[in-house]
Amino acid sequence: MSDHFPRYAYEDFTIGSEWSLGSKLVTAEEIIAFASVFDPQPFHLDEAVGKSSILGGLAASGWHTASMFMRMFCDAYLLDSTSQGAPGVDYVKWKRPVLAGDTLTGKTTILDQRTSRSKPSLGFVKMHHDLFNQHAQLVCELEHTAMFSLREPIEP
Amino acid sequence: MSDHFPRYAYEDFTIGSEWSLGSKLVTAEEIIAFASVFDPQPFHLDEAVGKSSILGGLAASGWHTASMFMRMFCDAYLLDSTSQGAPGVDYVKWKRPVLAGDTLTGKTTILDQRTSRSKPSLGFVKMHHDLFNQHAQLVCELEHTAMFSLREPIEP
Repeated sequence: MSDHFPRYAYEDFTIGSEWSLGSKLVTAEEIIAFASVFDPQPFHLDEAVGKSSILGGLAASGWHTASMFMRMFCDAYLLDSTSQGAPGVDYVKWKRPVLAGDTLTGKTTILDQRTSRSKPSLGFVKMHHDLFNQHAQLVCELEHTAMFSLREPIEP
Repeated sequence: MSDHFPRYAYEDFTIGSEWSLGSKLVTAEEIIAFASVFDPQPFHLDEAVGKSSILGGLAASGWHTASMFMRMFCDAYLLDSTSQGAPGVDYVKWKRPVLAGDTLTGKTTILDQRTSRSKPSLGFVKMHHDLFNQHAQLVCELEHTAMFSLREPIEP
């Protein structure tokens, strides 16, 4: 799509390497905007209801948290990579509420990588992602296997 | 939060029962709006790029599809239930692209239910959800265990 070859390719996602996901401030306006469209449960829409629930405040929908992760992932390295997408996620765990005013940070840890047998230009990378709040508490974790093109395809 | 007792409680989610998730038309504007905020990969933002990719058209972000599922789930029965949330999802599989102009339908199948040992007013319901396009092709499936209050808590 452009003359620029992406900075990151399959070869860079070595097992055990860690990748920062930057940071993201979560605002009440964003929480309410997402929930209004996709998850209109009262504790995602109203601060008073959130405060009186076990969530302890206006809390982001779990799908909003996952979507904010996706943007952090895109900005940190995915958009400047040879990514070929992903067929799904192995799991998502929402460990603690993400509340209005929280600042999320995150990191990716590479669990495994292998090249495709049928398509020598392609590789599979198993990734574990952690998101933390400003108190260094884990709020969300997920794993998935992503596909990336090789920088230098293996000779057949 | 209101005097209305929800229509659906733990007891209603019997193993093997199926629950319709209604339907949802997916527009190009919605696909682009979601992707602009959460997943700005070119094939989610630009119809020409999507058409020339293996996705075959302007395709929704996988997280957008999951979020649209959440809204369908809310409107179909969750918002009128004793839902107490869910700690995560076991998996999400994106089986086919969701394209601009598609109409999604879906159903939930109840895989398992059990009451909490520590909290007799609470039960766990394992749910499988399928989303289809207008050609009856499976586009997304996911599973998770949700918590619901019992209508009539078990006597201790």
